[in-house]
Amino acid sequence: MIRIGILGYGNLGKGVECAVKHNPDMKLVAVFTRRDPASLKIRTEGASVYAADTLEQHRDDIDVLILCGGSATDLPLQTPDAVRYFNVVDSFDTHARVPEHFANVDREGKASGHIGIISVGWDPGLFSLARLYSNAVLTDGKDYTFWGRGVSQGHSDAIRRIDGVKDARQYTVPVPEAVEAVRAGKNPELSTRQKHTRECYVVAEEGADLARIENEIKTMPNYFADYDTTVHFISEEELKANHSGLPHGGSVIRTGRTGWDNENMHTIEFSLKLDSNPEFTTQVLVAFARAAYRLNQKGESGARTVFDIPPVMLSAQDPADLRAHLL
Amino acid sequence: MIRIGILGYGNLGKGVECAVKHNPDMKLVAVFTRRDPASLKIRTEGASVYAADTLEQHRDDIDVLILCGGSATDLPLQTPDAVRYFNVVDSFDTHARVPEHFANVDREGKASGHIGIISVGWDPGLFSLARLYSNAVLTDGKDYTFWGRGVSQGHSDAIRRIDGVKDARQYTVPVPEAVEAVRAGKNPELSTRQKHTRECYVVAEEGADLARIENEIKTMPNYFADYDTTVHFISEEELKANHSGLPHGGSVIRTGRTGWDNENMHTIEFSLKLDSNPEFTTQVLVAFARAAYRLNQKGESGARTVFDIPPVMLSAQDPADLRAHLL
Repeated sequence: MIRIGILGYGNLGKGVECAVKHNPDMKLVAVFTRRDPASLKIRTEGASVYAADTLEQHRDDIDVLILCGGSATDLPLQTPDAVRYFNVVDSFDTHARVPEHFANVDREGKASGHIGIISVGWDPGLFSLARLYSNAVLTDGKDYTFWGRGVSQGHSDAIRRIDGVKDARQYTVPVPEAVEAVRAGKNPELSTRQKHTRECYVVAEEGADLARIENEIKTMPNYFADYDTTVHFISEEELKANHSGLPHGGSVIRTGRTGWDNENMHTIEFSLKLDSNPEFTTQVLVAFARAAYRLNQKGESGARTVFDIPPVMLSAQDPADLRAHLL
Repeated sequence: MIRIGILGYGNLGKGVECAVKHNPDMKLVAVFTRRDPASLKIRTEGASVYAADTLEQHRDDIDVLILCGGSATDLPLQTPDAVRYFNVVDSFDTHARVPEHFANVDREGKASGHIGIISVGWDPGLFSLARLYSNAVLTDGKDYTFWGRGVSQGHSDAIRRIDGVKDARQYTVPVPEAVEAVRAGKNPELSTRQKHTRECYVVAEEGADLARIENEIKTMPNYFADYDTTVHFISEEELKANHSGLPHGGSVIRTGRTGWDNENMHTIEFSLKLDSNPEFTTQVLVAFARAAYRLNQKGESGARTVFDIPPVMLSAQDPADLRAHLL
C-alpha cells in the first residue's frame, strides 16, 4: 500500500481523499491543515489530522504528500519545503512561473533524495501531454486549446469582489464556430474574443445598482474586457439550485500536414467533459503520486513534470497485463 | 543528426521517408528492400538503397532502423532479427501476439545492447496511450474504441479475393448513435453490429454476377457477417477518382465516476481524423525512433512499448523549452 498524505483540506484535498478511495493500492494516512486540527472532520476512517507545521515529524509515515494549496501564494513555498521530507505532487498552474518553481523543487528534492512532480492535473497536466504528443507527431501544425463550458473560480471570485455582489458564478464557454473551424482544419487565427465567451450568474444585494454591476463586470481588465460577456442576475436560491457544481472541460486540438509536399491533413483532438473539476484533477494527482513513489523506489530524486513520467508508472496494473490488454 | 534506416518500401516505408523530411534532427541514410535494389527509386537525395539481406553490413551507419513490414509474417521475424544490429521501431499490430513478440525482441535487444520499441502507430500506439492514461485517471469507468470513418486495407483485400471482383475499397464507419450514447455517459453495452457498419465500393469484372458478389461479401465470416454491410458497385474510374486515398481515424472514449459515492461523471475522449493512415502512422514511428535513440544513448536495451517511453523523449525540443511553452 502506498501511504498518502494531504496538505490542505479544501476542494482539492477533499477530492484527493475520494480519489484515494478509488485506488485500492493506496491508503490515506494523514491530512495536514493550517486550521485547528481538532476542528477538521475528514471522511476516511483511521486517517489522522495534524497541524500543517508538524510535517517533518511524520516524514517516515507517508510515501507521497499531495499538496492541495493554491498556486498564487501556497505552492511556491509549500512544494520546495515539503519535498525536503516527502515525495510530493502538486497542481501548480501559474504557467509563467513553472521554470522557477521547477528549479526550486528540483534543488530541494535532489538535496533530500525525494521526487517532486509539479503542475499535475488537466491543464497543466493531461492537456499538456496532449500538446506534447501531438506536437511530436504532427511536426508541422498548429495548436489550439479551448476551455469549457466550465466554471472559472478565479473569474467568479473577481465578480464577488464587486460592491453590491452577494455571490456569483462565471462560466467560460468556447465559441462553437471557432471550435468547428479548427476541427475542419481551417487553421483560423483567433483573437481572445473569438475563442471564448463568458457567462456570469450574479446574485446582487437588495437595492444594488444592477446596471453599474453589469458595467463593472463587462469592463474589468484582464478578466472580462477582452471577451463578449453576458450577465444574468438571479436569486440566491437559483444559484444554489442550478450553479452549485464545479463542472469544466475543454479540448486540445492540433491540426497538421504530412507528406513529401504537405499534401495530407490530420487532426488530433483530446477533450474532457467533467462534472467536477476538483475531483477529476485529484484523480490525476493520485495517479502521478503512484509514479512519484515508484520513481523514488528506483532511487531517483528531483523535480519532474508529466512530460517526464513513463505512462506505465501511472497504472496500478502490471506492465505485462497492460501490454496484453490495453496496448 | 539521428541516422534513420527503413526496411521495406511500401506505403509505410514511403511514409517514413516523408516523416524524416519533417524532422530536422533526422536524416534518412538507407532503404533496405527485398526487391532488386537497382529497381527501387526513392525520393531522398543522398540516401542509399541496399538489399534487405545486407542489414548487418550497415550496422555502424544507422542509429535507428524503422521496420515497415507487415505484422502477419514479416515483423515477427524481422524485428527480433534487426534488433541484433540496430535500435529498431516497428508497428506490430496483432494485439493477441504482442506478449510473444515483446519477449522475442526483449531477449535479442538485451543480448545485443539495442532498444526495440514495438507496436508503435495510432492503434496500437496513440490510442493505447489514450486508454492507459484514461484508465489510470478514471479508475472506475468503461472504455470504448471506435474506428473510422476509414479504409480498412485487410477488408478491402478480402473483397478483392472474391471471384469476379476487379478492385474494391472498404470503409469502416462508426455508428453515430453509438458514439453519441457513449459520449453522453450512458455506458451502453454494444454488440459488434451496433458499433460499426461497413461500406464497400466494388469494381466488378464485366459480366460478373453482382448479386452473388454482394452476397459473398455480406456473408463472409469474421470480416462482414457480424456487421450491417452495404455494397456499391462502381466503375474503375469512380474508384480511382473518389476512393484512392487511405483516410482513417477514430476515437477512444472512457467514461467514469469519481467522488465519495461515485456522484460525478467524467468523459475523456481522444480522437483522430487522418487524410492518410500510413503517413500519420509513420510520423508516430519517427517520433518514437527519436526516443529509441535517446534511450540507447543512456545505455538502455531491450523491448519497450509506447507505455514505457517518457513523453519528453519524443520531442526534438529541449525539456526546459517544453516546460516553458507546452506545459
